[in-house]
Amino acid sequence: MDSTKTVNIIRIKGKESMNEEDIVIMEYPFTIFVNDEEIITLLCSPNSLKELLVGFLYSEGFLTSFSDIDRIRIDKDKGIGYIYLKNINKFNEKLRGKRTITSGCGKGTLFYNVLDSFKSKKIEKSLSLQADEIKEIVRQFNRKSELFLTTGGVHSCALCSNQDIIIFEEDIGRHNALDKIFGKALLEKIDTKDKIILTSGRISSEILIKSAKRQVPVIVSRSAPTSLAVEMATELGITLIGFARGEKMNIYTNFPSLIF
Amino acid sequence: MDSTKTVNIIRIKGKESMNEEDIVIMEYPFTIFVNDEEIITLLCSPNSLKELLVGFLYSEGFLTSFSDIDRIRIDKDKGIGYIYLKNINKFNEKLRGKRTITSGCGKGTLFYNVLDSFKSKKIEKSLSLQADEIKEIVRQFNRKSELFLTTGGVHSCALCSNQDIIIFEEDIGRHNALDKIFGKALLEKIDTKDKIILTSGRISSEILIKSAKRQVPVIVSRSAPTSLAVEMATELGITLIGFARGEKMNIYTNFPSLIF
Repeated sequence: MDSTKTVNIIRIKGKESMNEEDIVIMEYPFTIFVNDEEIITLLCSPNSLKELLVGFLYSEGFLTSFSDIDRIRIDKDKGIGYIYLKNINKFNEKLRGKRTITSGCGKGTLFYNVLDSFKSKKIEKSLSLQADEIKEIVRQFNRKSELFLTTGGVHSCALCSNQDIIIFEEDIGRHNALDKIFGKALLEKIDTKDKIILTSGRISSEILIKSAKRQVPVIVSRSAPTSLAVEMATELGITLIGFARGEKMNIYTNFPSLIF
Repeated sequence: MDSTKTVNIIRIKGKESMNEEDIVIMEYPFTIFVNDEEIITLLCSPNSLKELLVGFLYSEGFLTSFSDIDRIRIDKDKGIGYIYLKNINKFNEKLRGKRTITSGCGKGTLFYNVLDSFKSKKIEKSLSLQADEIKEIVRQFNRKSELFLTTGGVHSCALCSNQDIIIFEEDIGRHNALDKIFGKALLEKIDTKDKIILTSGRISSEILIKSAKRQVPVIVSRSAPTSLAVEMATELGITLIGFARGEKMNIYTNFPSLIF
């Protein structure tokens, strides 16, 4: 299935108007069934669906390791992904945790529960990196981000060593692109503890939480981080780098792990 | 509460590194209680919270008109919004519809149910617009988008007539910004049927569904639309304009409602 679609448009330029063809990015509804129960429909780019399925369910707490997976089947034409997990109880429990409407009396919000559960998960392994190494992988990353250049509508994400891009994914959603990365890492048993996450999109708290779950020590973005992402990165021991473009970058947190 | 926060960073430029201050955009957890039940925590920019509360609940189907609202209280320090709705049954029903894990047998996906329920909601009122009018409101819109210029991390959204911006909102999330617009329109009883939605972000199917619910006939973006947004706009009779920048714009759907 193509990642783009050609449509007829009218292009306006000053006083002129022209009938032309234009390429738009595919937005593909992908429905996930876990042990034959419908969970959610993600709106995504129609590639790396198996990776998205696994990564999304990992991020949401449905599965915690490769060994939880019994089998996976993707029906691309219908836009459905089926996964069978070995431990149905755990899944149900996590599901309820996510969707329950908790009582307002004496309970914190779901969000702060999420934060709390991550406070203990400080990054164990720090990474020594040189600024020049980051500039070089950002250059590689920009060269790879082709879909964005064609359509202006997609986010790129990569898992990298300090030398090379190991996994590269694109999606209309920042979160989907990251879930695809972690899904692939899980399926191919690639360690994420000594790696770098590169993203074209903004670094929000959710991106940070997902990366912290996989113990990624460094997150680099072409864009800005949010205040909450900076606070959480400080807390979790993650090095946060924003506005990484050409010869420039801003280091927001945990400077010591970088060597310049 | 400020929309931005100052943090200490190390700025790298070539071989130089400088300790500096930088401004990052606030990401604020805002928990919504409906009739004393906790519903969700949104991660948003900490302004126009009442509008966000009302707009989000409208988009999600918890309320359908101003008269559904009994009272609203915002606790900004704690990040909580309380709304009391008159019709608790309706709310519970909608809530269940949204969160239930439907059985996989013989039922379509939640997503297609959503699409189906909108197919009948074609835009009733078309809008006559001149390309020059769009260029002018886009210029106004760009001048107003200040927070983005400061921090590089926020989306702007506006409800406009063919002459002026009527409501303008900013948020770290595209959807939040749009929900704030519709929340304010609902609270101030501003008709949206003869208006234009302007957004700095990509036009996805979700943006389209939200706008169609309020019968907005024209959506304009500085960015790209997705394939699904183009298909739905065609179906719903909405005029979709992308890449509206300076003297240029691309018209993707329903050309006849525009006069050039």
